[in-house]
Amino acid sequence: MAFASYYPLEPGKENVFVVQTTPIKYGPGCVAELGAEAKAMGLARVALFTDRQVLDLAPAQAAIRSLQAAGVDVTVYDRTEVEPTDISFQEAADFAVDGDFDGFVSIGGGSVIDTAKAANLFASHPAELLTYVNKPIGQGVPVPGPLRPHIACPTTSGTGSECTGVAVFDLLSQHVKTGISSRFMKPNLALVDPEFTYSLPPMVVAATGFDVLTHAIESYTAIRYTAREKPADPALRPPYQGANPHSDLGSMEAIRMGGRYLLRAVQDPEDREARNAMMYAATMAGISFGNAGVHIPHAMSYSVAGMIRDYHPEGWPGNAPICPHGLSVVINAPAAFRFTGDGDPQRHLAAAEALGADISGAQPAAAGAVLSDKLIELMKAAGLPNGLSGMGYGEADIPGLVKGAIAQQRLLVLAPKPVGEAELAALYADAMTYW
Amino acid sequence: MAFASYYPLEPGKENVFVVQTTPIKYGPGCVAELGAEAKAMGLARVALFTDRQVLDLAPAQAAIRSLQAAGVDVTVYDRTEVEPTDISFQEAADFAVDGDFDGFVSIGGGSVIDTAKAANLFASHPAELLTYVNKPIGQGVPVPGPLRPHIACPTTSGTGSECTGVAVFDLLSQHVKTGISSRFMKPNLALVDPEFTYSLPPMVVAATGFDVLTHAIESYTAIRYTAREKPADPALRPPYQGANPHSDLGSMEAIRMGGRYLLRAVQDPEDREARNAMMYAATMAGISFGNAGVHIPHAMSYSVAGMIRDYHPEGWPGNAPICPHGLSVVINAPAAFRFTGDGDPQRHLAAAEALGADISGAQPAAAGAVLSDKLIELMKAAGLPNGLSGMGYGEADIPGLVKGAIAQQRLLVLAPKPVGEAELAALYADAMTYW
Repeated sequence: MAFASYYPLEPGKENVFVVQTTPIKYGPGCVAELGAEAKAMGLARVALFTDRQVLDLAPAQAAIRSLQAAGVDVTVYDRTEVEPTDISFQEAADFAVDGDFDGFVSIGGGSVIDTAKAANLFASHPAELLTYVNKPIGQGVPVPGPLRPHIACPTTSGTGSECTGVAVFDLLSQHVKTGISSRFMKPNLALVDPEFTYSLPPMVVAATGFDVLTHAIESYTAIRYTAREKPADPALRPPYQGANPHSDLGSMEAIRMGGRYLLRAVQDPEDREARNAMMYAATMAGISFGNAGVHIPHAMSYSVAGMIRDYHPEGWPGNAPICPHGLSVVINAPAAFRFTGDGDPQRHLAAAEALGADISGAQPAAAGAVLSDKLIELMKAAGLPNGLSGMGYGEADIPGLVKGAIAQQRLLVLAPKPVGEAELAALYADAMTYW
Repeated sequence: MAFASYYPLEPGKENVFVVQTTPIKYGPGCVAELGAEAKAMGLARVALFTDRQVLDLAPAQAAIRSLQAAGVDVTVYDRTEVEPTDISFQEAADFAVDGDFDGFVSIGGGSVIDTAKAANLFASHPAELLTYVNKPIGQGVPVPGPLRPHIACPTTSGTGSECTGVAVFDLLSQHVKTGISSRFMKPNLALVDPEFTYSLPPMVVAATGFDVLTHAIESYTAIRYTAREKPADPALRPPYQGANPHSDLGSMEAIRMGGRYLLRAVQDPEDREARNAMMYAATMAGISFGNAGVHIPHAMSYSVAGMIRDYHPEGWPGNAPICPHGLSVVINAPAAFRFTGDGDPQRHLAAAEALGADISGAQPAAAGAVLSDKLIELMKAAGLPNGLSGMGYGEADIPGLVKGAIAQQRLLVLAPKPVGEAELAALYADAMTYW
């Protein structure tokens, strides 16, 4: 609790923050209440977005049965892609427009939930795909108003997408990750059921779990909301507002839970206490970064995921080259926090301590290193690749990686110190090998 | 963070909790964004509930101007009563039905916000007044669906009503306080502007500030959500679910802030840091008790407020006999927590420590006393009356007070240990004099 001392108000600077959170129902088995919830929202005919792997899981089947038992007509769309593209978003949007559904349900990871958000958007407010996409890639037209109801059921403990108004996709023609962002795209309800995670292989739990940790640490170390200029029009206040007293609470809780439960959840699939806890931590982190934002590790992640050549994580479904989102983020995190440490030493030390590091006697100048060392220790123990080089990247890739990262100005402006192309190049170099 | 160890899941018991929070915009001056928010919700014609005192305040005028500037048609209803009754609820409902507004705005304390909730309910789902009122006094018919949009602007740092789906009133014919409770009655947005509190006299700040503290301590010490039976139908899950991992975070933050800022806010009207902080603490506590619930001090408060004869707090507006809500609650709190301490010693000690007490060496058996002693110290320093006797109550009033409290079963079931008429009588006796 450092409310007033950490957030002094200054003339001309922002003095308002917004807390907008998807209503959450959390608990093992709670997805079986989907039908009752859809009915309570007055839904009679829903599009259910998922993917083929998830569709076969027992909790997904229970969810669909509960919709049917409640008399809700369900049309399943299982063609969502693991990393959505403009093509897959357009197909989903066409499906949604044609179907004229009165509501949307998503059961899956971030890709599925994001696809449902986009389909709902274009069904509710028809437009060309690039209309609402963030500038400079899209036209950045604000979403004009509320969408149809959307109930999101995350199946991995990492995405946080159920709590945000963001949908991310690859724009294939430009080889770039971009997205659509609006508070109207936040789902209306999230059913957070940890039973979905009981059957996940360790590497999926690790990748998503480290995504949770980086969401939380980035939110906690982001610039303060009081450091931004106050917008002339409240409609121009960004959804990612910077750290604030509310996001701090959830971020710290998620960091503490990650420090205590992440390795347990990775190493023992039968440790349900740990998997339950990581699912809750993911939601807490989602609430926080959904309002505060993320910064350098996420900005660096898009090109890491986009330029992957032949890496495929051990135990990951399928065999195509892929860098899972969480891995593409955390792989930059130790380098990023080593760099940002002196931008806010106290917060980096507090995050390290919440993660389980011994910070007694640590000097402020070492804050970034202390946090990074603790993260590296956890990454090594969880069996993650040893930096970017462990995923097949080398020095020659750095210019391309930087090009992708520098485009993410929406995120980079939230870093606790300025970061340009030269700094990003140094960060990718530092992220090549960690141990 | 005691997620898994404090909330073990047991077969047949509840394993699901819900977090449903009014979206919040917080900051000095933020009520001037009311017009932009109403417009963003598509509102063109709103009923604005307030009272005559509030209507004259500069922030209220700024709010109305912002609505007008946004082209929103405003009809002011300033006849809300300080403690609403079935008569005043019915008048407000008639006004709302007649006006056929497309949305509601409330600017005031808990009484105003509750009145707007009730008016919105009866305009959206017309019925006889007692239809939706909690059993056994009313018929307890569930509110059938969403209401029209409602933006709540609390003007005191205490109510928390902006975060709850509860509206409380006096049923005059039966001399009893009761209410209506539904998740659909939660406002759609709260503009939490601490500038409203800058002009409040010390006793108003004290009464509302201690309401915040008791909201938070009661939520934190309420039974665990996992101690309730799991409902056969999720629609039967009570809005007050018991303590849960999410409410714990907000409760503890509000207790810490209250311990640090309440006396400062009472004693120095110019201490804006303290008044800003108490307004935020009120909202955090509101989020928590809106999902977790409150127990004995609130259950005991209704008859304390209802049976008041000739007490009028120094510096309180007007001169009619009145026991402000916050005062009617906190006056019971030291006695109640002394009693509940052994129902959950660890939580009572943690609350005492968050409030600023030195708990080193405190034995679990003394947990209730340690918390109560700290509360009494703060109450005395804030100039509160010395227990119920300080408000004109005596031993002869106890049977009547108990009769009012025992009717509040919806709250009493949330106490961390069983409480019946004999216990309540002893608690009122203990609450007569504190120092």
